[in-house]
Amino acid sequence: MFFRTDMAVERRDIYKTANKIEDEISGIECEEIKKGDFTITRVKILNKDGEKALQRKIGNYITIDIRKVSNITIEKEEKIIKTFSEELAKIINNHIKKEDEILIVGLGNMNATPDSLGAKVVQNIEITRHIKIYLPNAIDKNTRSVSAITPGVLGTTGIETVEIVKGIVDNIKPKLVIAVDSLCSKNIERINKSIQISDTGIIPGGGVGNKQEELSTETLGIPVIGVGIPTVLDAATIVLEALDVCEVKYNEDDVITKMRLNNFNFIVTPKEIDERIENMSMIISEGINLAL
Amino acid sequence: MFFRTDMAVERRDIYKTANKIEDEISGIECEEIKKGDFTITRVKILNKDGEKALQRKIGNYITIDIRKVSNITIEKEEKIIKTFSEELAKIINNHIKKEDEILIVGLGNMNATPDSLGAKVVQNIEITRHIKIYLPNAIDKNTRSVSAITPGVLGTTGIETVEIVKGIVDNIKPKLVIAVDSLCSKNIERINKSIQISDTGIIPGGGVGNKQEELSTETLGIPVIGVGIPTVLDAATIVLEALDVCEVKYNEDDVITKMRLNNFNFIVTPKEIDERIENMSMIISEGINLAL
Amino acid sequence: MFFRTDMAVERRDIYKTANKIEDEISGIECEEIKKGDFTITRVKILNKDGEKALQRKIGNYITIDIRKVSNITIEKEEKIIKTFSEELAKIINNHIKKEDEILIVGLGNMNATPDSLGAKVVQNIEITRHIKIYLPNAIDKNTRSVSAITPGVLGTTGIETVEIVKGIVDNIKPKLVIAVDSLCSKNIERINKSIQISDTGIIPGGGVGNKQEELSTETLGIPVIGVGIPTVLDAATIVLEALDVCEVKYNEDDVITKMRLNNFNFIVTPKEIDERIENMSMIISEGINLAL
Amino acid sequence: MFFRTDMAVERRDIYKTANKIEDEISGIECEEIKKGDFTITRVKILNKDGEKALQRKIGNYITIDIRKVSNITIEKEEKIIKTFSEELAKIINNHIKKEDEILIVGLGNMNATPDSLGAKVVQNIEITRHIKIYLPNAIDKNTRSVSAITPGVLGTTGIETVEIVKGIVDNIKPKLVIAVDSLCSKNIERINKSIQISDTGIIPGGGVGNKQEELSTETLGIPVIGVGIPTVLDAATIVLEALDVCEVKYNEDDVITKMRLNNFNFIVTPKEIDERIENMSMIISEGINLAL
Repeated sequence: MFFRTDMAVERRDIYKTANKIEDEISGIECEEIKKGDFTITRVKILNKDGEKALQRKIGNYITIDIRKVSNITIEKEEKIIKTFSEELAKIINNHIKKEDEILIVGLGNMNATPDSLGAKVVQNIEITRHIKIYLPNAIDKNTRSVSAITPGVLGTTGIETVEIVKGIVDNIKPKLVIAVDSLCSKNIERINKSIQISDTGIIPGGGVGNKQEELSTETLGIPVIGVGIPTVLDAATIVLEALDVCEVKYNEDDVITKMRLNNFNFIVTPKEIDERIENMSMIISEGINLAL
Repeated sequence: MFFRTDMAVERRDIYKTANKIEDEISGIECEEIKKGDFTITRVKILNKDGEKALQRKIGNYITIDIRKVSNITIEKEEKIIKTFSEELAKIINNHIKKEDEILIVGLGNMNATPDSLGAKVVQNIEITRHIKIYLPNAIDKNTRSVSAITPGVLGTTGIETVEIVKGIVDNIKPKLVIAVDSLCSKNIERINKSIQISDTGIIPGGGVGNKQEELSTETLGIPVIGVGIPTVLDAATIVLEALDVCEVKYNEDDVITKMRLNNFNFIVTPKEIDERIENMSMIISEGINLAL
Repeated sequence: MFFRTDMAVERRDIYKTANKIEDEISGIECEEIKKGDFTITRVKILNKDGEKALQRKIGNYITIDIRKVSNITIEKEEKIIKTFSEELAKIINNHIKKEDEILIVGLGNMNATPDSLGAKVVQNIEITRHIKIYLPNAIDKNTRSVSAITPGVLGTTGIETVEIVKGIVDNIKPKLVIAVDSLCSKNIERINKSIQISDTGIIPGGGVGNKQEELSTETLGIPVIGVGIPTVLDAATIVLEALDVCEVKYNEDDVITKMRLNNFNFIVTPKEIDERIENMSMIISEGINLAL
Repeated sequence: MFFRTDMAVERRDIYKTANKIEDEISGIECEEIKKGDFTITRVKILNKDGEKALQRKIGNYITIDIRKVSNITIEKEEKIIKTFSEELAKIINNHIKKEDEILIVGLGNMNATPDSLGAKVVQNIEITRHIKIYLPNAIDKNTRSVSAITPGVLGTTGIETVEIVKGIVDNIKPKLVIAVDSLCSKNIERINKSIQISDTGIIPGGGVGNKQEELSTETLGIPVIGVGIPTVLDAATIVLEALDVCEVKYNEDDVITKMRLNNFNFIVTPKEIDERIENMSMIISEGINLAL
């Protein structure tokens, strides 16, 4: 089964529809909370059954869905930031103590608009690690030590992201990594309209680049929280949607397999991507700052 | 007939295939010259017949095709720059005198990678107009007066590009405009691998944005030379190519029409677009500098 | 007298000190309001006497001073945005009606960090003009028509900024221009820590570039509100401050004159300029959006 | 003695003038070669005497001086690239074998124009490491493995540059590092008009940022070649030059000491820095590509 989405919440829907499951998938727990015009969905993968169904690791996947927020005013923005920040803080506090050092990793490619989310977020993170080391009196002693890097992408560095991050983690020894990346969604309306937080790590290039080895407890030795926003669609997604719209009959797996074999290796993104990614990166960075 | 390409040379091929024309389309002249591993094709639309066939205005459309240049070394790059520059100079000299003032217009959106060609080219143009006005002794008196602007896109300015350019043209009165833009191609291999020069103006947003009123002699009152590089594919193109690959039967016009009705409004571009556009913008700006 | 500052409030202080004036300069009115930890100063130049003293045109110059805000939290930021927005709205409403069209002009050079304020602000302005024209039903009919441009700088366009803006104003006929630019301050602590609003227009390149013809009612035919943030110091300022610190005796006018004759043509800016300008451009764009 | 320059060639001149040395400084060797309108100077620090005099480590410092190249045409540019590339290749070949892996490190701050050289250079480096690992058949097997990173600056990452680079070096084990950075010169005419290559490592932030621990054989365990271009002046330099121009008497060490005590912590750079840094970063990246 090809999910063509990095969103656990979409994978659950797809799996349920494909397998005609009315209640809940075995090995999955899901809770949905409406907060005014946005929705928080908490998908929990409990065991191997759940892993196998969604092809994602055991752990928590929280989605904040703002598709229904028609006009993002400053007040609405504040609310989104606050909600995201609370959800993120909860997950962080499950793994480390209040004073433990955190490294933020902005994944993706600064120079390719839909892949620039991670790098843009890092630009607005409040960094404290160097102040705590070099000017300890200039900062409240309870402030958490926060550092941040933008490792770039395999195509421009020649180095696997995990190799770069592992080198830095080994050297500066943070207690937790928050990795921010662009994701791939199956739903055009979700583009820049959802935030996914998970505590199972992240696969760099899931959204736009080429998939690489994951950043996770297994590879880095410390917990990795993934924060992502869908910014692109899989090329197969628009082909299949076009086929549906045109009422052409097809076999889905067959189309996807043949597209992969024939290197349909494109970025597919809405035309207004540049405006929206600016806003969302601001929301994510403010939310992270607030949570830390 | 939906061409889904801004390249006159592709439109000619498509028209010939669709209409099973073996020789030449009525109202069209075409000349192809091989220069080592690149090819120059000169398509000339002679009259209303040609206009109707290719849905492009009477005039010259020159394509420099570098698809066969497998490895762009510094020497190859020099050759491409020289060839482009000579073709451009010829067209300029058909319209104005050696000393006549030129305005370069970099179309497109700096913040959306595949649409950033025009803005990037303008950054490397050698501007002389202000030196000729304010420091005439600092510059050879035969130097042509060159100015350049980046008008932005409708979505970020709220103003039609032609309104901005017309305002400036009316005020500073250049004798010719060179407008640089990203184009849409129907052939994935052509992306960042061809340069089209035409003397019939340009339609901003042809490639990535929303189509707007053209920049041309009709709207600006002076000749407009369009210089473009294909950086994107039409969403319908990858859908139809996927259908071909999957051997699904379909009616082309029907698919395209339904996609348009259903707002399949995407940017489709290769994953390495950011690296390639850097190189090509350099080639275009060096070539323009050399031609002027 | 060389003021070496674009801030009316600093010019007033300098003039008072230089002329040992204890009360108020003839032709000037000044009001200072403390709001928590920031201060609003309203300098009004009433007549020719005031003009001559401050070498600025008759009109209003409002400064929001946030130097005392030691730690800009999200709440503090909201307050600064709100205050700025209210002051700006008052000045706009003095000149035009609620529904009148406004053009925002982002002055300066996107590629030179301390001069990038105007261009960065424009990126976050909510543009409505094209929606009101092309999709009038998609927008509340009382929404004001707002457009925005980034004209670039003389060195990269070859065109005086006023020529570009005048061309566009003549073509699209807005009722008022808001021009945003980097300013020059005489006080290092003010860099990125004050906002000046004036209703007398603005001289592009006052801060970083080379001074050009002003944007004002006289040149554009409509009211021009200037919004600026100090991002640089005059080279003479750090020389004179160094002399004071070193207790070297000197004649101020003599030093400045000789520096000008010898082309001390530098950008002088604090080392952290890149971080601070990001924040301030966000505050200005949010404030303008709120005011409109 | 405060040199206020990162250029060994300038330090030698200053030391000779200050100490009235007519021949050569003890422990220093120097060779100057004119090549058309540019000059190559090879300063060699031979021993502790030389180290003490120039306050730089034992090793080679090569400067390519293009101040006399009045108009940088494409041909001139080619020559500069070729010369730089040959000098760099010689130094590399002194330390490693033809096939040994190299890591390029682009130091400095992408978002502060005069400090963006390193990051800009890295964007145009031809990266091969990932191709050699993942697609070995797509590349000539004699191609050298090249990777590249942009570690950012302490103020935005919170991490010392040497900690980031050391982490990566330990992980991917290249045989040599080439570190590219902006430098500080004492001579305004040299800004963007000289290239310094040295085989003794580099101190990040020498030019614009705050000085940090050096990248060198001592800290990284492998040879580090520094490549730099002067882009800024020390604040004290323009103060002292202004004093000279104004014929004010002063004690140099006294002025500098007092400026340091009073935190004159500025970036001082010419107004056209943005245009020039674009060109020079291109020359450096092309030269590195050619040398590798």
